Amino acid sequence: MDNSIETSILKNINTPSDLKNLSDAELELLCTEIRQTLVDTVASTGGHLASNLGTVELTVALHKMFNSPEDKIIWDVGHQAYAHKLLTGRRDAFSTLRTEGGISGFVRPDESEHDSFYEGHAGTSVSQAAGVAAANAAKGSKNFAVAVVGDGSFGNGMVYEALDHAGSTKTRLIIILNDNEMSISENVGAMARYLAAVRAKPEYYRFKAGTEKALRKIPLIGKSLSNHLFKLKNTLKNIIYSSSFFEDLGFRYIGPVDGHDINRLCDAMNSAKMIERPVVIHINTMKGRGYDYAENAPEKFHGISKFDINTGEPIQSSGSYSSEFGKILCDFAAKDKRICAITAAMALGTGLEDFSKQYSDRFYDVGIAEEHAVTFGSGLSAGGMLPVFAVYSTFLQRCADQLIHDGALQRRKLIIAVDRAGFVGEDGETHQGLFDVSVVQSLPNTTVYSPATYCELSKAFYNAFYKDKNLVIIRYPRGGMPADTEYSDLCASDYEIVGDENAKVSIVTYGRLFFNAANALKLLGEDAANVKIIKLNRIKPLPKETVDAALKCSNVFFFEEGMKGGGVGEKFGCELLLGGFNGSYKLTAVEDEFVTHASVNSLMDKYSMSAEKMAQLIKKEAAI
Amino acid sequence: MDNSIETSILKNINTPSDLKNLSDAELELLCTEIRQTLVDTVASTGGHLASNLGTVELTVALHKMFNSPEDKIIWDVGHQAYAHKLLTGRRDAFSTLRTEGGISGFVRPDESEHDSFYEGHAGTSVSQAAGVAAANAAKGSKNFAVAVVGDGSFGNGMVYEALDHAGSTKTRLIIILNDNEMSISENVGAMARYLAAVRAKPEYYRFKAGTEKALRKIPLIGKSLSNHLFKLKNTLKNIIYSSSFFEDLGFRYIGPVDGHDINRLCDAMNSAKMIERPVVIHINTMKGRGYDYAENAPEKFHGISKFDINTGEPIQSSGSYSSEFGKILCDFAAKDKRICAITAAMALGTGLEDFSKQYSDRFYDVGIAEEHAVTFGSGLSAGGMLPVFAVYSTFLQRCADQLIHDGALQRRKLIIAVDRAGFVGEDGETHQGLFDVSVVQSLPNTTVYSPATYCELSKAFYNAFYKDKNLVIIRYPRGGMPADTEYSDLCASDYEIVGDENAKVSIVTYGRLFFNAANALKLLGEDAANVKIIKLNRIKPLPKETVDAALKCSNVFFFEEGMKGGGVGEKFGCELLLGGFNGSYKLTAVEDEFVTHASVNSLMDKYSMSAEKMAQLIKKEAAI
Repeated sequence: MDNSIETSILKNINTPSDLKNLSDAELELLCTEIRQTLVDTVASTGGHLASNLGTVELTVALHKMFNSPEDKIIWDVGHQAYAHKLLTGRRDAFSTLRTEGGISGFVRPDESEHDSFYEGHAGTSVSQAAGVAAANAAKGSKNFAVAVVGDGSFGNGMVYEALDHAGSTKTRLIIILNDNEMSISENVGAMARYLAAVRAKPEYYRFKAGTEKALRKIPLIGKSLSNHLFKLKNTLKNIIYSSSFFEDLGFRYIGPVDGHDINRLCDAMNSAKMIERPVVIHINTMKGRGYDYAENAPEKFHGISKFDINTGEPIQSSGSYSSEFGKILCDFAAKDKRICAITAAMALGTGLEDFSKQYSDRFYDVGIAEEHAVTFGSGLSAGGMLPVFAVYSTFLQRCADQLIHDGALQRRKLIIAVDRAGFVGEDGETHQGLFDVSVVQSLPNTTVYSPATYCELSKAFYNAFYKDKNLVIIRYPRGGMPADTEYSDLCASDYEIVGDENAKVSIVTYGRLFFNAANALKLLGEDAANVKIIKLNRIKPLPKETVDAALKCSNVFFFEEGMKGGGVGEKFGCELLLGGFNGSYKLTAVEDEFVTHASVNSLMDKYSMSAEKMAQLIKKEAAI
Repeated sequence: MDNSIETSILKNINTPSDLKNLSDAELELLCTEIRQTLVDTVASTGGHLASNLGTVELTVALHKMFNSPEDKIIWDVGHQAYAHKLLTGRRDAFSTLRTEGGISGFVRPDESEHDSFYEGHAGTSVSQAAGVAAANAAKGSKNFAVAVVGDGSFGNGMVYEALDHAGSTKTRLIIILNDNEMSISENVGAMARYLAAVRAKPEYYRFKAGTEKALRKIPLIGKSLSNHLFKLKNTLKNIIYSSSFFEDLGFRYIGPVDGHDINRLCDAMNSAKMIERPVVIHINTMKGRGYDYAENAPEKFHGISKFDINTGEPIQSSGSYSSEFGKILCDFAAKDKRICAITAAMALGTGLEDFSKQYSDRFYDVGIAEEHAVTFGSGLSAGGMLPVFAVYSTFLQRCADQLIHDGALQRRKLIIAVDRAGFVGEDGETHQGLFDVSVVQSLPNTTVYSPATYCELSKAFYNAFYKDKNLVIIRYPRGGMPADTEYSDLCASDYEIVGDENAKVSIVTYGRLFFNAANALKLLGEDAANVKIIKLNRIKPLPKETVDAALKCSNVFFFEEGMKGGGVGEKFGCELLLGGFNGSYKLTAVEDEFVTHASVNSLMDKYSMSAEKMAQLIKKEAAI
């Protein structure tokens, strides 16, 4: 089936200025073409779909009403900027989305002058835009700074810090609050009902004439919005939708505006530009808009692998450390009522979906609030529970102080399950899990595991619950254990030595690089008899036996899937030196650079951590 | 002059239960005795005074109405818990406040079962209390969790994350919002006016009969509150004082309550205990209450050194790295309009007071919001400014992710001035500046300086503004340069080698430990001829010349005023090994423990970084 459409408008848009004089009908067609391109591309590359389908009209309106790059458009999280990429000179390259050397899935200044900041973490855009606006004010510039923020980011404390500060300034700051969960509070009940009535009209969901070709391919049966519109949750997100919240902070408030109506969006932006002070434009959009599989299951289509465009089903799905973690936690929780789980809006990604259903009374989703999550866990622990906070490595960076001050210092049992540790691949520099080890390296009273096999993952949790004290961190990579490994039953607790204990050459490594090391031994063939693998499972404190084992060697090769600075490899090298080692030490890790998007396998090769590269290095250096 | 009073009530309070049956008059006298003890003690020990004088009645009421430690009373930041210490078995030891082996200036579970958590950073208490309350709910316990939070902490995003989450629970969580800046918004205007009328009565400020002795010593001329009460600032702090804010979040709201009226406080707490859901009690207190120097200048008496009780003036005041930093920044700013300064509510502590007056249009105080501060700085930089964010080392931990994601990754000029790096002494484990180096060790595109002299401090800023690229971090200790050093004019850029270049023994160190190393050489006398000092000034990237210089030595001694894990000493050792070094390497740093309060000199000795300990180690190990 041919999923491409013949684009008639989009193909002529090479810079944002090309869309400024389009007619209403042309703009609508453009939106349809963009949507079609998004669905077609993400189906074959994977990526963020639901959020991008929701911001098509918004993006078109922004580029019509503002002059990027003089005016800075700043996309919070940066995963909803695909349409922005299509309109800013990256249309032809867009099919390379998330592939090595191709277009990034996030906002990336390296790609275009229209990308103001690298973006990948939630809640940063208001602070960034406030800074740009303050600089403009200081310079006397009349340019605008526009932050586009989804309502999810309003669970993050940083946004409040920024609003608190920026509201008192007199700057050309415009915040677009993209409210795509439609959980509007009672405060705007009248307006919400009005909007619901407007939006519930069936024709509202249809693309306009001239888009029939697209329509046939993208099912458009919209689900009823009214339930969502009147869903009342007592959260900050809802309170802020009361206009007085922003007005009291010093902002002017415009909204709610239908975020799929380009004319209304442009009117609102025009009004905002007239006001010489910070403005919030509150818009309502629908995640997944225009592709009904995504409309009906936006969380599934938030970040998705390649999928079948006609069924909406992922093309491949296999076991992963995340799903193993979820099973392990459920098993322990069945036997121990103290065990509870915390997530910062990542129940699905971290494998906690089953836990959240089976043990809903011990499951806490705190929103995109990693700082609170750790300290809340500390409180649960003080109250006698056994809390596990599951978080991606890249987002663990958000709670470094909480790990120090509310974790390690308190000397109470608190467990952090760190998912996506190591290369994450296609999501690129903002999402690589390469910093967590150095962030926790200095923590007193802390145990850190980096298991390779599922069995070790389970054992690490057993140790954490019933053997170790205080703060325990268990980190594991994205994806799953290699299907073909002969070591799937390996189940080290602190470390394992694989190969001849008396071998004079050793590979020292941890986590999934162990599998590469094992394959490197195969590649070395007979030479492998002289090589042992010292596999760390507990990386902090370092098992003394592993240093002792390396001290006996003439050549030690350390491979680390993480930053060199502050990593385990530097510590291990220093410990060897302190132990009087005078053999050769080689450390392979990521040196002082951010790692761009590419497949994990490609990154393993690029950073010399693949089995082939390991074997080459050993052959060259160790003269075995 | 004898500043002690003969305590008649306080001396009989050994546990909180001892105060439960006191009469109103006795409770009032108790408060007077507590205040007298606070002023007398802090005058001689230094510490936090204004905040503690403001929470005397609150503390008495809390211990009357709740049963600690079954009910957990959690003090945000933990610097306002002196009265709590006096009432929980630490009265006799209180004169040892902030001295080695004595009572900590912050909340510390090691001291008492009534201290629930180690506390020293702002905004953590609501999360902790929410966790305890959730655990109580899970266990079916009827105990309460009470968080006491000052309004300053409401500038911190973490509090909003916690409120957002906790408001939707049905737990026995009570939040005392201690509003001690009296910046009440229009929303509660009527109540504020009523309260102002009540509080403006002159007798309200007087201690009651029986306290005449104390009265004579503590001047009690209260300043007018009415200006403060009606000061309107557009900040989140004010918006939350509208009861609907908390009610909308799911909390019950009680207040505002006069925080110096024990009966009203007890009534409010009693009401809160009846409600089976989270409650906020909003109270108004006056910082410095009862000691007019503190009432009139609460910021000065927030954290203060020893002072003269009759004049309120600090007993000693000398030059410091902080004040030098302030002067340096003013000098650069005079010549370069792009230079601007950011503080997270620490203008005074970080030496930015003059800058804030001279360059008010380029000065940004964002409140206790370190995350926003960094990312706002990133925005200023994108807008063409040269921003400097001045922050204490311990609070830099709060923005690790922002340093990675919004600092280093963006590859724009952003400068972080890290004050209180290294031992801070009397403030203890929550405030030591020992983690910042390991937090930034892994950052790509980043330069880190750790100067020793004021000249080097200035040169580091010159380099940061005009020579280095991207993120630059300049860290310096609390206090000042030694008065008697002969090296005050030393002005290294990247490194300096002091002594005979061909010496076979080297001390490698950075920051103020250089002065100890120089003194160690003096202690070594003639033996010092064999010893050189390799003084790092730029600690990241490591100057290659310093590693080369050490490679020529037989013995290398690294001294680091910071955590060993992830520190510079481990990296340096590893670099030596990678360079083929086979001499002896000794690394002295803080190993895997939190450092408790004691004088800096004592800590230098305890952790073997004093000149004497350095000389001893070298004599013992190097056979010179």
